[in-house]
Amino acid sequence: MNETTDADLRSFIPVAADSHFPIQNLPYGVFRRLAGGPASIGVAIGDQILDLTFLENQGMINVPALGKYRLFDRGKLNPLMAAGKRVWSETRALLSRLLRSDERTLRDDPALRQQALVSMNDVTMLLPAEIGDYTDFYSSREHATNVGTMLRGPENALMPNWLHLPVAYHGRASSIVVSGTDVVRPHGQSKPDKAVEPIFGPSRLLDFELEMAVFVGPGNDLGHPIPVTEAEDHLFGLVLLNDWSARDIQAWEYAPLGPFLGKNFLTTISPWVVPLEALEPFRCAGPAQAPIPLPYLQAMGQGAFDIHLEVLLQATTMPQPSCICRSNFNVLYWSLAQQVAHHTVNGCNLRPGDLLASGTISGSTPDSFGSLLELSWRGTKPMSLPNGEQRAFLQDADRITLTGWCQGAGYRVGFGEAIGKVQPAHR
Amino acid sequence: MNETTDADLRSFIPVAADSHFPIQNLPYGVFRRLAGGPASIGVAIGDQILDLTFLENQGMINVPALGKYRLFDRGKLNPLMAAGKRVWSETRALLSRLLRSDERTLRDDPALRQQALVSMNDVTMLLPAEIGDYTDFYSSREHATNVGTMLRGPENALMPNWLHLPVAYHGRASSIVVSGTDVVRPHGQSKPDKAVEPIFGPSRLLDFELEMAVFVGPGNDLGHPIPVTEAEDHLFGLVLLNDWSARDIQAWEYAPLGPFLGKNFLTTISPWVVPLEALEPFRCAGPAQAPIPLPYLQAMGQGAFDIHLEVLLQATTMPQPSCICRSNFNVLYWSLAQQVAHHTVNGCNLRPGDLLASGTISGSTPDSFGSLLELSWRGTKPMSLPNGEQRAFLQDADRITLTGWCQGAGYRVGFGEAIGKVQPAHR
Repeated sequence: MNETTDADLRSFIPVAADSHFPIQNLPYGVFRRLAGGPASIGVAIGDQILDLTFLENQGMINVPALGKYRLFDRGKLNPLMAAGKRVWSETRALLSRLLRSDERTLRDDPALRQQALVSMNDVTMLLPAEIGDYTDFYSSREHATNVGTMLRGPENALMPNWLHLPVAYHGRASSIVVSGTDVVRPHGQSKPDKAVEPIFGPSRLLDFELEMAVFVGPGNDLGHPIPVTEAEDHLFGLVLLNDWSARDIQAWEYAPLGPFLGKNFLTTISPWVVPLEALEPFRCAGPAQAPIPLPYLQAMGQGAFDIHLEVLLQATTMPQPSCICRSNFNVLYWSLAQQVAHHTVNGCNLRPGDLLASGTISGSTPDSFGSLLELSWRGTKPMSLPNGEQRAFLQDADRITLTGWCQGAGYRVGFGEAIGKVQPAHR
Repeated sequence: MNETTDADLRSFIPVAADSHFPIQNLPYGVFRRLAGGPASIGVAIGDQILDLTFLENQGMINVPALGKYRLFDRGKLNPLMAAGKRVWSETRALLSRLLRSDERTLRDDPALRQQALVSMNDVTMLLPAEIGDYTDFYSSREHATNVGTMLRGPENALMPNWLHLPVAYHGRASSIVVSGTDVVRPHGQSKPDKAVEPIFGPSRLLDFELEMAVFVGPGNDLGHPIPVTEAEDHLFGLVLLNDWSARDIQAWEYAPLGPFLGKNFLTTISPWVVPLEALEPFRCAGPAQAPIPLPYLQAMGQGAFDIHLEVLLQATTMPQPSCICRSNFNVLYWSLAQQVAHHTVNGCNLRPGDLLASGTISGSTPDSFGSLLELSWRGTKPMSLPNGEQRAFLQDADRITLTGWCQGAGYRVGFGEAIGKVQPAHR
């Protein structure tokens, strides 16, 4: 697969220098050409989509590791995720070859191209997979420290377990939606600091959380942990994830069993799943770990990825979205491999299409904090927006965009966007 | 449906007086006649199963509300759950009629009976449904008080939110298994009280939790709460649930985001789903609620059910299982309807086949506590077993059986059993 890490590699499809989807990326997604029509699977290339469901129907997906088994006929990526690393790699090599500037099959067949390629503007993107279970980690030390400092003061900011294991909780799979879905301000119970009794009404403290998430590949049988050294073989690819949070609902409900209604009203992911293989050139070291983790969490090699991340906010009166956070996936203390090893060490089974989110990705500087809770320090330091407005928490009609990319030499391996606009509470 | 609540109602199939499955019950389950063969759907009657997949293929399931739509051809109960209350009621009436002692269709056709009925001894029971999301509530005041007392002392036992909302968290759907599946003692990280650093190894404090759980019916669209007055229309039926817990893993990991690896290694449910309609004669008042809940949680009428529950433990040296807990579903402070209304009030969507568990069902007397954590008061008061052994927590080869039933006049509407035997940790 050297060719896909090659900055000189080019597609016959024109790709702008700042496009997220050059031939070095080839992320997978699920789309619909017509409302009510069937869902197809594709890879993004520039502002086009190569329709893999069509190509498979044409007999053009010949993957030796796969045989006659079909991957792209069910309108979701779960079969590809389940197929494992060898199939992923061979499929990617085949698609990369098809799209290369020096490969004639598609390039020189306008009729075939006409059917196999579709403009991103002409489709609706869908959830990439059926998500069985959704887990949300809490792997940014800076985020955990910030939240802990607000709740317990700087001396007891990090819980005693935090440096020993990747803390996580189960989230809600049913309410995960694809980018572009509006977020309706949720109703709920909360108890303002000075109130004697709890109150009910629309959340007053609506927030976003900048996260990324990985889709699980083959996974493991119940009772059979995945060793940390094999964990990455079970990771299909990454997306952006906005873990919308109602801070007032969350604060009142969360003790002692963790977040529930403060989170499960909506979670937004970006539609394009970037394969781990496309991220290999951007692999890097994560933060040093001290104390040294227990042996089942000890991984060799570099487990982090250099992914630049941004959050943009656009209020109705702003002509342009404004960047309110710049962070990086490489700040995360616990690696993806460590998360998988921990998650399964008790025998818990992961299934193809399960989603593991990182937790809020906050860096060490205030402009890298990945939530308004931190950016406005619990509302005590509202942010100033270019239009003169201030923001402690989200207001109705605010539009939040998460985006991110790896910067290569002359190209970007990008994740597109995870967008959501705040709609007023119902009634 | 008067006939199904009638104590005089009899089936032509012989049913013992203490059977859990008289004609008044008719719970649904999924079974396999042959290893590797197809999954069928059935209702339990005495020690037999009426094969609904077969009857549907014979054109014998004529449900007006359903038309030509098939419910029993997919090896799981999700289509029936999705179909809603009117279909449930009509299907139940049809099956009750087919099995009545004065109905000749099946009774007088030995060839048909031979194909439509199968002995429970000749099948393997499977999970009744594909479970999308699994939620675990915490609705026994006595359980929450007991746990809170151990952790924080009697003055601060109940968290301030507990009397205002049904506390819950998301559990793991992938590791829910059907009765009879062994539970392997999980490995994990824990930190003994006097240790300086956490340790890794097999859990030393393995426990059960006596719970029941309800399968969701039609459910709701994202953003559209289910009012408390309509909540029961979305409840298909109940099962027993054992929320196996590794207390040492749980204690070290759970702050601040709740239980994770201490719970998600296995959850056992009973195979027969008892329809809410079969429980109607056993409806009763739950505990009085003070303070009065917020309006969205205020339900009229009786929201509890009188279901006698037992936990039995059998060590290898015991010839018989010994009852170690007697409790009742009617002790739960928060009703099923309140749980559904709360779960969806922020717009969170429930889907057919989702599972909502009650939390540990502990009563007010020590012999009604629904976990060893409480029965042995955190291990400080080990229980004595009939064979002279003591138990603070579960030992390898211990077999735990949950069972429960509603006692009618001369019949029982029972839930069968949720059984699991402890296997030693791997390696």
